[in-house]
Amino acid sequence: MTDDTRTTKLSLYPEHRALAGEEGIYGDLKLPSPGSGRFPYVLVNMVSSVDGRSSVGGRATGIGSRTDREAMRALRSRVDAVMIGSGTLRAEKLNLGLDDPGGRQPLAVVVAGAGDLPPREHLVGEHRGLLLVVPEGSPRAREVDDPAVSVLETPGCSGRVDLGRLLGALKTEYAVDRLLVEGGPTLNRSLIDEGLAHELFLTVAPKLLLGREAAIVSGAPNVVVGETRAEPRDLTLLSARAAGGELFLRYRLRRPRGPGP
Amino acid sequence: MTDDTRTTKLSLYPEHRALAGEEGIYGDLKLPSPGSGRFPYVLVNMVSSVDGRSSVGGRATGIGSRTDREAMRALRSRVDAVMIGSGTLRAEKLNLGLDDPGGRQPLAVVVAGAGDLPPREHLVGEHRGLLLVVPEGSPRAREVDDPAVSVLETPGCSGRVDLGRLLGALKTEYAVDRLLVEGGPTLNRSLIDEGLAHELFLTVAPKLLLGREAAIVSGAPNVVVGETRAEPRDLTLLSARAAGGELFLRYRLRRPRGPGP
Repeated sequence: MTDDTRTTKLSLYPEHRALAGEEGIYGDLKLPSPGSGRFPYVLVNMVSSVDGRSSVGGRATGIGSRTDREAMRALRSRVDAVMIGSGTLRAEKLNLGLDDPGGRQPLAVVVAGAGDLPPREHLVGEHRGLLLVVPEGSPRAREVDDPAVSVLETPGCSGRVDLGRLLGALKTEYAVDRLLVEGGPTLNRSLIDEGLAHELFLTVAPKLLLGREAAIVSGAPNVVVGETRAEPRDLTLLSARAAGGELFLRYRLRRPRGPGP
Repeated sequence: MTDDTRTTKLSLYPEHRALAGEEGIYGDLKLPSPGSGRFPYVLVNMVSSVDGRSSVGGRATGIGSRTDREAMRALRSRVDAVMIGSGTLRAEKLNLGLDDPGGRQPLAVVVAGAGDLPPREHLVGEHRGLLLVVPEGSPRAREVDDPAVSVLETPGCSGRVDLGRLLGALKTEYAVDRLLVEGGPTLNRSLIDEGLAHELFLTVAPKLLLGREAAIVSGAPNVVVGETRAEPRDLTLLSARAAGGELFLRYRLRRPRGPGP
Protein backbone atom coordinates (compact mmCIF):
# COMPACT_ATOMS: atom_id res chain seq x y z
CA MET A 1 0.00 0.00 0.00
CA THR A 2 1.49 3.32 -0.99
CA ASP A 3 1.81 6.35 1.21
CA ASP A 4 -0.88 8.05 -0.87
CA THR A 5 -3.38 5.35 -0.13
CA ARG A 6 -2.80 5.46 3.57
CA THR A 7 -3.19 9.23 3.76
CA THR A 8 -6.32 9.37 1.59
CA LYS A 9 -9.45 9.87 3.61
CA LEU A 10 -12.71 9.53 1.77
CA SER A 11 -15.79 10.46 3.68
CA LEU A 12 -19.38 11.18 2.85
CA TYR A 13 -20.02 14.42 4.58
CA PRO A 14 -23.21 14.41 6.61
CA GLU A 15 -25.03 17.23 4.94
CA HIS A 16 -27.61 17.81 7.63
CA ARG A 17 -24.84 18.86 10.00
CA ALA A 18 -23.66 21.46 7.50
CA LEU A 19 -27.19 22.76 7.10
CA ALA A 20 -27.52 22.95 10.89
CA GLY A 21 -24.34 24.98 10.98
CA GLU A 22 -22.63 22.56 13.34
CA GLU A 23 -19.54 21.83 11.28
CA GLY A 24 -18.90 22.58 7.62
CA ILE A 25 -16.96 20.53 5.09
CA TYR A 26 -13.69 21.91 6.49
CA GLY A 27 -14.96 22.55 10.00
CA ASP A 28 -12.49 20.01 11.38
CA LEU A 29 -9.60 21.01 9.10
CA LYS A 30 -6.17 20.89 10.67
CA LEU A 31 -3.44 22.94 9.01
CA PRO A 32 0.26 22.70 9.84
CA SER A 33 1.49 25.18 12.44
CA PRO A 34 2.95 28.31 10.87
CA GLY A 35 6.66 27.76 10.48
CA SER A 36 9.51 30.14 11.00
CA GLY A 37 10.27 30.23 7.29
CA ARG A 38 10.41 33.29 5.04
CA PHE A 39 7.02 32.72 3.43
CA PRO A 40 3.45 32.17 4.61
CA TYR A 41 1.84 28.74 4.36
CA VAL A 42 -0.12 29.09 1.12
CA LEU A 43 -3.44 27.41 0.33
CA VAL A 44 -4.99 27.75 -3.12
CA ASN A 45 -8.76 27.23 -3.22
CA MET A 46 -10.72 26.85 -6.46
CA VAL A 47 -13.98 25.45 -7.73
CA SER A 48 -14.29 23.78 -11.10
CA SER A 49 -16.76 21.77 -13.11
CA VAL A 50 -16.17 18.11 -13.93
CA ASP A 51 -14.78 19.25 -17.29
CA GLY A 52 -12.23 21.44 -15.53
CA ARG A 53 -13.73 24.88 -16.15
CA SER A 54 -13.31 27.42 -13.36
CA SER A 55 -15.45 30.21 -14.75
CA VAL A 56 -18.53 30.98 -16.84
CA GLY A 57 -18.25 34.19 -18.82
CA GLY A 58 -15.22 35.10 -16.70
CA ARG A 59 -17.04 34.61 -13.39
CA ALA A 60 -16.61 31.81 -10.88
CA THR A 61 -19.63 32.70 -8.76
CA GLY A 62 -22.45 30.22 -9.18
CA ILE A 63 -20.33 27.17 -10.06
CA GLY A 64 -20.28 25.92 -6.47
CA SER A 65 -23.21 25.37 -4.14
CA ARG A 66 -23.99 26.88 -0.76
CA THR A 67 -21.95 24.05 0.78
CA ASP A 68 -18.96 25.14 -1.30
CA ARG A 69 -19.32 28.73 -0.12
CA GLU A 70 -19.41 27.45 3.47
CA ALA A 71 -16.25 25.43 2.83
CA MET A 72 -14.62 28.55 1.35
CA ARG A 73 -15.46 30.58 4.45
CA ALA A 74 -14.14 27.78 6.69
CA LEU A 75 -10.81 28.09 4.87
CA ARG A 76 -10.87 31.89 5.17
CA SER A 77 -11.47 31.62 8.91
CA ARG A 78 -8.14 29.78 9.24
CA VAL A 79 -5.93 32.27 7.41
CA ASP A 80 -4.62 35.77 7.98
CA ALA A 81 -5.13 37.04 4.44
CA VAL A 82 -7.08 36.20 1.30
CA MET A 83 -5.34 37.05 -1.99
CA ILE A 84 -6.66 37.32 -5.57
CA GLY A 85 -5.39 38.69 -8.85
CA SER A 86 -6.84 41.95 -10.13
CA GLY A 87 -8.43 40.24 -13.15
CA THR A 88 -10.55 38.15 -10.84
CA LEU A 89 -11.77 41.28 -9.05
CA ARG A 90 -12.44 43.02 -12.35
CA ALA A 91 -14.66 40.15 -13.52
CA GLU A 92 -17.22 40.46 -10.73
CA LYS A 93 -18.06 41.86 -7.30
CA LEU A 94 -16.43 39.76 -4.60
CA ASN A 95 -16.59 39.43 -0.83
CA LEU A 96 -13.31 38.01 0.44
CA GLY A 97 -14.35 38.09 4.10
CA LEU A 98 -16.33 36.01 6.55
CA ASP A 99 -20.06 36.22 7.10
CA ASP A 100 -19.75 37.14 10.76
CA PRO A 101 -19.08 40.91 10.80
CA GLY A 102 -17.93 40.63 14.43
CA GLY A 103 -15.37 37.91 13.67
CA ARG A 104 -11.69 38.41 12.91
CA GLN A 105 -11.71 39.25 9.22
CA PRO A 106 -8.82 38.35 6.92
CA LEU A 107 -6.74 40.98 5.17
CA ALA A 108 -7.79 41.29 1.52
CA VAL A 109 -4.81 41.34 -0.88
CA VAL A 110 -5.24 42.18 -4.56
CA VAL A 111 -2.25 41.71 -6.89
CA ALA A 112 -2.19 44.08 -9.86
CA GLY A 113 0.06 44.65 -12.86
CA ALA A 114 1.90 47.89 -13.62
CA GLY A 115 -0.74 49.53 -15.78
CA ASP A 116 -3.59 48.07 -13.89
CA LEU A 117 -5.87 49.38 -11.15
CA PRO A 118 -8.60 46.97 -10.06
CA PRO A 119 -12.09 48.37 -9.41
CA ARG A 120 -12.14 49.05 -5.68
CA GLU A 121 -15.93 49.11 -5.68
CA HIS A 122 -15.98 45.44 -6.68
CA LEU A 123 -14.63 44.44 -3.28
CA VAL A 124 -17.60 44.19 -0.94
CA GLY A 125 -18.09 42.94 2.62
CA GLU A 126 -15.94 43.12 5.72
CA HIS A 127 -12.12 42.89 5.71
CA ARG A 128 -9.22 43.72 7.97
CA GLY A 129 -8.35 46.16 5.18
CA LEU A 130 -7.47 46.09 1.49
CA LEU A 131 -3.86 45.80 0.47
CA LEU A 132 -3.34 46.64 -3.17
CA VAL A 133 -0.05 45.22 -4.46
CA VAL A 134 1.57 46.80 -7.52
CA PRO A 135 5.02 46.52 -9.10
CA GLU A 136 7.51 49.07 -7.74
CA GLY A 137 7.25 52.41 -9.51
CA SER A 138 3.82 51.66 -10.92
CA PRO A 139 2.41 54.98 -12.19
CA ARG A 140 -1.16 54.02 -11.38
CA ALA A 141 -0.42 53.53 -7.68
CA ARG A 142 -0.47 57.29 -7.08
CA GLU A 143 -4.03 57.46 -8.34
CA VAL A 144 -5.29 55.50 -5.34
CA ASP A 145 -7.08 58.02 -3.12
CA ASP A 146 -9.01 55.83 -0.72
CA PRO A 147 -8.18 55.75 3.01
CA ALA A 148 -9.41 52.12 3.16
CA VAL A 149 -6.76 51.00 0.67
CA SER A 150 -3.08 50.48 1.45
CA VAL A 151 -0.75 50.31 -1.52
CA LEU A 152 2.25 47.99 -1.34
CA GLU A 153 4.84 48.57 -4.02
CA THR A 154 6.81 45.37 -4.51
CA PRO A 155 9.88 44.71 -6.65
CA GLY A 156 9.02 43.08 -9.93
CA CYS A 157 9.98 42.86 -13.54
CA SER A 158 8.19 43.25 -16.88
CA GLY A 159 5.41 45.11 -15.09
CA ARG A 160 4.65 42.22 -12.78
CA VAL A 161 4.97 41.71 -9.06
CA ASP A 162 7.70 39.35 -7.79
CA LEU A 163 5.59 36.90 -5.82
CA GLY A 164 8.43 35.63 -3.65
CA ARG A 165 9.17 39.18 -2.51
CA LEU A 166 5.47 39.82 -1.98
CA LEU A 167 4.96 36.74 0.16
CA GLY A 168 8.05 37.57 2.17
CA ALA A 169 6.67 41.06 2.82
CA LEU A 170 3.26 39.70 3.78
CA LYS A 171 4.90 37.45 6.36
CA THR A 172 7.28 39.96 7.90
CA GLU A 173 5.38 43.24 7.55
CA TYR A 174 1.76 42.11 7.77
CA ALA A 175 2.05 39.07 10.06
CA VAL A 176 0.50 36.80 7.43
CA ASP A 177 1.42 33.27 8.51
CA ARG A 178 -1.26 31.62 6.44
CA LEU A 179 -2.42 32.90 3.07
CA LEU A 180 -5.43 31.74 1.09
CA VAL A 181 -5.30 32.36 -2.67
CA GLU A 182 -8.58 32.29 -4.59
CA GLY A 183 -7.36 32.75 -8.18
CA GLY A 184 -7.46 33.62 -10.89
CA PRO A 185 -5.83 30.80 -12.80
CA THR A 186 -2.78 32.88 -13.75
CA LEU A 187 -1.95 33.86 -10.18
CA ASN A 188 -2.40 30.23 -9.11
CA ARG A 189 -0.09 29.09 -11.87
CA SER A 190 2.64 31.56 -11.01
CA LEU A 191 2.58 30.61 -7.32
CA ILE A 192 2.75 26.93 -8.21
CA ASP A 193 5.53 27.42 -10.75
CA GLU A 194 7.58 29.34 -8.22
CA GLY A 195 7.10 26.64 -5.59
CA LEU A 196 5.23 29.00 -3.26
CA ALA A 197 1.94 27.07 -2.92
CA HIS A 198 1.68 24.31 -0.33
CA GLU A 199 -1.85 22.97 -0.70
CA LEU A 200 -4.60 22.97 -3.31
CA PHE A 201 -8.24 22.77 -2.31
CA LEU A 202 -10.52 21.95 -5.21
CA THR A 203 -14.29 21.72 -5.21
CA VAL A 204 -15.58 19.73 -8.18
CA ALA A 205 -19.15 20.77 -8.95
CA PRO A 206 -21.33 18.07 -10.56
CA LYS A 207 -21.77 19.78 -13.90
CA LEU A 208 -20.26 20.20 -17.32
CA LEU A 209 -19.73 23.85 -18.19
CA LEU A 210 -18.62 23.10 -21.76
CA GLY A 211 -17.44 26.64 -22.44
CA ARG A 212 -14.11 27.93 -23.69
CA GLU A 213 -13.19 28.91 -20.17
CA ALA A 214 -10.04 28.92 -18.10
CA ALA A 215 -8.88 25.91 -16.14
CA ILE A 216 -8.03 26.32 -12.44
CA VAL A 217 -4.45 27.02 -13.47
CA SER A 218 -3.62 28.83 -16.67
CA GLY A 219 -0.48 29.10 -18.72
CA ALA A 220 -0.78 32.74 -19.70
CA PRO A 221 1.17 34.79 -17.18
CA ASN A 222 -0.54 38.12 -17.81
CA VAL A 223 -0.61 39.41 -14.25
CA VAL A 224 2.38 38.23 -12.28
CA VAL A 225 5.89 36.96 -12.73
CA GLY A 226 6.09 33.27 -13.46
CA GLU A 227 7.90 30.87 -15.71
CA THR A 228 5.71 29.16 -18.24
CA ARG A 229 7.43 25.78 -18.19
CA ALA A 230 4.84 23.05 -18.48
CA GLU A 231 6.48 20.35 -16.38
CA PRO A 232 3.77 18.25 -14.72
CA ARG A 233 3.65 18.46 -10.94
CA ASP A 234 2.74 15.54 -8.71
CA LEU A 235 0.17 16.06 -5.97
CA THR A 236 -0.71 14.05 -2.88
CA LEU A 237 -4.40 13.55 -2.23
CA LEU A 238 -4.90 14.33 1.46
CA SER A 239 -8.66 14.03 1.67
CA ALA A 240 -11.78 13.73 -0.46
CA ARG A 241 -15.23 14.51 0.84
CA ALA A 242 -18.60 14.64 -0.86
CA ALA A 243 -21.86 16.42 -0.18
CA GLY A 244 -24.79 16.87 -2.52
CA GLY A 245 -22.83 15.54 -5.48
CA GLU A 246 -19.97 18.01 -4.95
CA LEU A 247 -16.49 16.72 -4.21
CA PHE A 248 -14.17 18.58 -1.86
CA LEU A 249 -10.58 17.59 -2.59
CA ARG A 250 -7.49 18.55 -0.66
CA TYR A 251 -4.06 18.03 -2.22
CA ARG A 252 -0.54 18.71 -1.04
CA LEU A 253 1.85 20.05 -3.65
CA ARG A 254 5.14 18.27 -3.73
CA ARG A 255 8.24 20.35 -4.04
CA PRO A 256 9.37 20.91 -7.60
CA ARG A 257 12.31 18.76 -8.56
CA GLY A 258 14.47 21.67 -9.56
CA PRO A 259 16.03 24.16 -7.14
CA GLY A 260 13.41 26.15 -5.23
CA PRO A 261 13.16 29.91 -5.09
CA MET B 1 -30.77 15.23 2.39
CA THR B 2 -30.87 15.48 -1.38
CA ASP B 3 -31.12 12.61 -3.80
CA ASP B 4 -27.54 13.27 -4.83
CA THR B 5 -26.27 12.75 -1.33
CA ARG B 6 -28.08 9.49 -0.87
CA THR B 7 -26.79 8.03 -4.10
CA THR B 8 -23.17 9.10 -3.57
CA LYS B 9 -20.93 6.26 -2.52
CA LEU B 10 -17.45 7.15 -1.44
CA SER B 11 -15.12 4.29 -0.84
CA LEU B 12 -11.43 3.86 -0.39
CA TYR B 13 -10.56 1.10 -2.76
CA PRO B 14 -8.42 -1.59 -1.18
CA GLU B 15 -5.41 -1.36 -3.41
CA HIS B 16 -3.89 -4.68 -2.45
CA ARG B 17 -6.92 -6.45 -3.96
CA ALA B 18 -6.40 -4.65 -7.25
CA LEU B 19 -2.75 -5.60 -7.24
CA ALA B 20 -3.70 -9.20 -6.53
CA GLY B 21 -6.03 -9.10 -9.52
CA GLU B 22 -9.02 -10.04 -7.42
CA GLU B 23 -11.29 -7.15 -8.29
CA GLY B 24 -10.44 -3.87 -9.97
CA ILE B 25 -11.87 -0.42 -9.28
CA TYR B 26 -14.91 -1.24 -11.41
CA GLY B 27 -14.82 -4.99 -10.84
CA ASP B 28 -18.21 -4.82 -9.12
CA LEU B 29 -19.73 -2.27 -11.50
CA LYS B 30 -23.40 -2.74 -12.29
CA LEU B 31 -24.70 -1.12 -15.46
CA PRO B 32 -28.37 -0.80 -16.38
CA SER B 33 -29.72 -3.63 -18.55
CA PRO B 34 -29.64 -2.78 -22.25
CA GLY B 35 -32.99 -1.27 -23.13
CA SER B 36 -35.08 -1.70 -26.23
CA GLY B 37 -34.44 1.89 -27.32
CA ARG B 38 -32.95 3.03 -30.61
CA PHE B 39 -29.49 3.74 -29.23
CA PRO B 40 -26.86 1.89 -27.21
CA TYR B 41 -26.23 2.75 -23.57
CA VAL B 42 -23.24 5.07 -23.86
CA LEU B 43 -20.44 5.43 -21.31
CA VAL B 44 -17.74 8.07 -21.77
CA ASN B 45 -14.47 7.30 -19.99
CA MET B 46 -11.68 9.86 -19.62
CA VAL B 47 -8.67 10.57 -17.44
CA SER B 48 -7.67 14.08 -16.49
CA SER B 49 -5.26 15.87 -14.22
CA VAL B 50 -6.49 17.91 -11.24
CA ASP B 51 -6.24 20.99 -13.48
CA GLY B 52 -8.57 19.39 -16.01
CA ARG B 53 -6.09 18.49 -18.75
CA SER B 54 -6.76 15.26 -20.64
CA SER B 55 -3.60 15.10 -22.72
CA VAL B 56 0.10 15.95 -22.76
CA GLY B 57 1.42 16.84 -26.18
CA GLY B 58 -1.82 15.44 -27.64
CA ARG B 59 -1.49 12.08 -25.89
CA ALA B 60 -3.52 10.77 -22.97
CA THR B 61 -1.32 7.76 -22.28
CA GLY B 62 0.69 8.16 -19.10
CA ILE B 63 -1.70 10.46 -17.26
CA GLY B 64 -3.36 7.59 -15.40
CA SER B 65 -1.70 4.85 -13.37
CA ARG B 66 -1.78 1.09 -13.77
CA THR B 67 -4.92 1.09 -11.61
CA ASP B 68 -6.57 3.46 -14.08
CA ARG B 69 -5.70 1.18 -16.98
CA GLU B 70 -7.22 -1.74 -15.07
CA ALA B 71 -10.39 0.31 -14.48
CA MET B 72 -10.48 1.14 -18.20
CA ARG B 73 -10.27 -2.53 -19.11
CA ALA B 74 -13.00 -3.37 -16.59
CA LEU B 75 -15.26 -0.91 -18.41
CA ARG B 76 -14.28 -2.36 -21.79
CA SER B 77 -15.15 -5.86 -20.58
CA ARG B 78 -18.75 -4.70 -20.01
CA VAL B 79 -19.42 -3.20 -23.44
CA ASP B 80 -19.85 -4.46 -26.98
CA ALA B 81 -17.81 -1.74 -28.67
CA VAL B 82 -15.16 0.87 -27.85
CA MET B 83 -15.33 4.07 -29.91
CA ILE B 84 -12.82 6.89 -30.44
CA GLY B 85 -12.43 9.82 -32.80
CA SER B 86 -9.82 9.59 -35.53
CA GLY B 87 -7.78 12.45 -34.03
CA THR B 88 -7.25 10.40 -30.89
CA LEU B 89 -5.95 7.48 -32.95
CA ARG B 90 -3.74 9.78 -34.99
CA ALA B 91 -2.09 11.12 -31.83
CA GLU B 92 -0.70 7.80 -30.65
CA LYS B 93 -0.77 4.02 -30.93
CA LEU B 94 -3.75 2.63 -29.03
CA ASN B 95 -5.02 -0.74 -27.89
CA LEU B 96 -8.79 -0.59 -27.48
CA GLY B 97 -9.15 -4.22 -26.45
CA LEU B 98 -8.78 -6.37 -23.35
CA ASP B 99 -5.58 -7.94 -22.11
CA ASP B 100 -6.89 -11.48 -22.36
CA PRO B 101 -6.49 -12.49 -26.03
CA GLY B 102 -8.89 -15.40 -25.45
CA GLY B 103 -11.66 -13.21 -23.99
CA ARG B 104 -14.54 -11.67 -25.91
CA GLN B 105 -13.00 -8.56 -27.41
CA PRO B 106 -15.03 -5.41 -28.06
CA LEU B 107 -15.56 -4.06 -31.55
CA ALA B 108 -13.25 -1.10 -32.21
CA VAL B 109 -15.05 1.87 -33.79
CA VAL B 110 -13.14 4.85 -35.16
CA VAL B 111 -15.12 7.93 -36.28
CA ALA B 112 -13.49 9.93 -39.06
CA GLY B 113 -14.31 13.07 -41.01
CA ALA B 114 -14.83 13.25 -44.76
CA GLY B 115 -11.25 14.00 -45.80
CA ASP B 116 -9.75 11.99 -43.03
CA LEU B 117 -8.32 8.47 -42.86
CA PRO B 118 -6.90 7.50 -39.47
CA PRO B 119 -3.63 5.55 -39.40
CA ARG B 120 -4.73 1.92 -39.24
CA GLU B 121 -1.33 0.86 -37.96
CA HIS B 122 -1.90 2.91 -34.79
CA LEU B 123 -4.58 0.48 -33.65
CA VAL B 124 -2.80 -2.38 -31.91
CA GLY B 125 -3.94 -5.38 -29.88
CA GLU B 126 -6.92 -7.71 -30.18
CA HIS B 127 -10.39 -6.58 -31.30
CA ARG B 128 -13.60 -8.12 -32.61
CA GLY B 129 -12.73 -6.09 -35.71
CA LEU B 130 -12.23 -2.47 -36.71
CA LEU B 131 -15.20 -0.48 -37.91
CA LEU B 132 -14.15 2.74 -39.63
CA VAL B 133 -17.02 5.21 -39.76
CA VAL B 134 -16.98 7.95 -42.40
CA PRO B 135 -19.61 10.38 -43.69
CA GLU B 136 -21.62 9.02 -46.64
CA GLY B 137 -19.88 9.54 -49.96
CA SER B 138 -16.51 10.15 -48.34
CA PRO B 139 -13.92 9.92 -51.14
CA ARG B 140 -11.25 8.51 -48.85
CA ALA B 141 -13.36 5.46 -47.91
CA ARG B 142 -12.52 3.76 -51.21
CA GLU B 143 -8.83 3.92 -50.35
CA VAL B 144 -9.27 1.45 -47.51
CA ASP B 145 -7.78 -1.81 -48.69
CA ASP B 146 -7.47 -3.87 -45.54
CA PRO B 147 -9.56 -7.01 -44.98
CA ALA B 148 -9.48 -6.39 -41.22
CA VAL B 149 -11.26 -3.05 -41.62
CA SER B 150 -14.98 -2.61 -42.29
CA VAL B 151 -16.07 0.77 -43.56
CA LEU B 152 -19.44 2.12 -42.46
CA GLU B 153 -20.66 5.09 -44.46
CA THR B 154 -23.12 7.03 -42.33
CA PRO B 155 -25.30 10.00 -43.27
CA GLY B 156 -23.79 13.26 -42.14
CA CYS B 157 -23.44 16.88 -43.02
CA SER B 158 -20.56 19.32 -43.42
CA GLY B 159 -18.21 16.38 -43.79
CA ARG B 160 -19.12 14.97 -40.39
CA VAL B 161 -20.85 11.82 -39.27
CA ASP B 162 -24.39 12.14 -37.83
CA LEU B 163 -23.83 10.51 -34.44
CA GLY B 164 -27.48 9.68 -33.83
CA ARG B 165 -27.61 7.75 -37.11
CA LEU B 166 -24.30 6.08 -36.29
CA LEU B 167 -25.42 4.93 -32.82
CA GLY B 168 -28.68 3.67 -34.28
CA ALA B 169 -26.73 1.64 -36.84
CA LEU B 170 -24.37 0.27 -34.20
CA LYS B 171 -27.35 -0.97 -32.20
CA THR B 172 -29.36 -2.51 -35.03
CA GLU B 173 -26.65 -3.69 -37.42
CA TYR B 174 -23.79 -4.50 -35.05
CA ALA B 175 -25.68 -5.57 -31.91
CA VAL B 176 -23.97 -2.90 -29.81
CA ASP B 177 -26.12 -2.56 -26.71
CA ARG B 178 -23.42 -0.87 -24.67
CA LEU B 179 -20.86 1.50 -26.13
CA LEU B 180 -17.76 2.87 -24.42
CA VAL B 181 -16.38 6.15 -25.78
CA GLU B 182 -12.79 7.04 -24.96
CA GLY B 183 -12.50 10.48 -26.55
CA GLY B 184 -11.25 12.67 -27.90
CA PRO B 185 -12.75 15.73 -26.28
CA THR B 186 -14.59 16.76 -29.45
CA LEU B 187 -16.34 13.42 -29.90
CA ASN B 188 -17.28 13.46 -26.20
CA ARG B 189 -18.68 16.96 -26.56
CA SER B 190 -20.77 16.11 -29.60
CA LEU B 191 -22.27 13.04 -27.94
CA ILE B 192 -23.11 15.04 -24.83
CA ASP B 193 -24.57 17.94 -26.80
CA GLU B 194 -26.78 15.59 -28.75
CA GLY B 195 -28.02 13.89 -25.57
CA LEU B 196 -26.52 10.53 -26.58
CA ALA B 197 -24.22 9.94 -23.58
CA HIS B 198 -25.63 8.34 -20.43
CA GLU B 199 -22.70 8.17 -18.03
CA LEU B 200 -19.32 9.80 -17.59
CA PHE B 201 -16.46 7.98 -15.91
CA LEU B 202 -13.61 10.27 -14.95
CA THR B 203 -10.29 9.35 -13.41
CA VAL B 204 -8.62 12.32 -11.74
CA ALA B 205 -4.87 11.74 -11.60
CA PRO B 206 -3.07 13.46 -8.70
CA LYS B 207 -1.02 15.85 -10.80
CA LEU B 208 -1.04 19.27 -12.41
CA LEU B 209 -0.23 19.06 -16.11
CA LEU B 210 -0.17 22.85 -16.54
CA GLY B 211 -0.06 22.70 -20.34
CA ARG B 212 -2.26 24.33 -22.93
CA GLU B 213 -4.04 21.05 -23.45
CA ALA B 214 -7.62 20.00 -24.14
CA ALA B 215 -10.15 19.47 -21.40
CA ILE B 216 -12.09 16.19 -21.32
CA VAL B 217 -14.76 17.86 -23.45
CA SER B 218 -13.89 20.45 -26.04
CA GLY B 219 -15.92 23.08 -27.81
CA ALA B 220 -14.31 22.76 -31.24
CA PRO B 221 -16.41 20.33 -33.29
CA ASN B 222 -13.79 19.41 -35.87
CA VAL B 223 -14.63 15.75 -36.27
CA VAL B 224 -18.33 15.12 -35.84
CA VAL B 225 -21.66 16.86 -35.98
CA GLY B 226 -22.50 18.78 -32.84
CA GLU B 227 -23.98 22.05 -31.78
CA THR B 228 -21.59 24.34 -29.97
CA ARG B 229 -24.08 25.74 -27.47
CA ALA B 230 -22.40 26.16 -24.11
CA GLU B 231 -25.32 25.50 -21.80
CA PRO B 232 -24.04 23.91 -18.60
CA ARG B 233 -25.20 20.35 -17.96
CA ASP B 234 -25.96 18.99 -14.52
CA LEU B 235 -24.49 15.64 -13.52
CA THR B 236 -25.36 13.21 -10.75
CA LEU B 237 -22.41 11.77 -8.85
CA LEU B 238 -23.06 8.04 -8.63
CA SER B 239 -19.83 6.93 -6.98
CA ALA B 240 -16.36 8.12 -6.05
CA ARG B 241 -13.53 5.78 -5.27
CA ALA B 242 -9.87 6.39 -4.54
CA ALA B 243 -6.72 4.36 -4.86
CA GLY B 244 -3.14 5.56 -4.74
CA GLY B 245 -4.21 9.20 -4.82
CA GLU B 246 -6.29 8.73 -7.96
CA LEU B 247 -10.02 9.37 -7.88
CA PHE B 248 -12.42 7.27 -9.92
CA LEU B 249 -15.65 9.21 -10.42
CA ARG B 250 -18.85 7.98 -12.01
CA TYR B 251 -21.51 10.48 -13.06
CA ARG B 252 -24.90 10.14 -14.68
CA LEU B 253 -25.73 12.76 -17.28
CA ARG B 254 -29.13 14.27 -16.86
CA ARG B 255 -31.23 14.76 -19.94
CA PRO B 256 -30.83 18.17 -21.55
CA ARG B 257 -33.69 20.50 -20.73
CA GLY B 258 -34.54 21.22 -24.35
CA PRO B 259 -36.12 18.75 -26.74
CA GLY B 260 -33.90 15.71 -27.31
CA PRO B 261 -32.67 14.47 -30.67
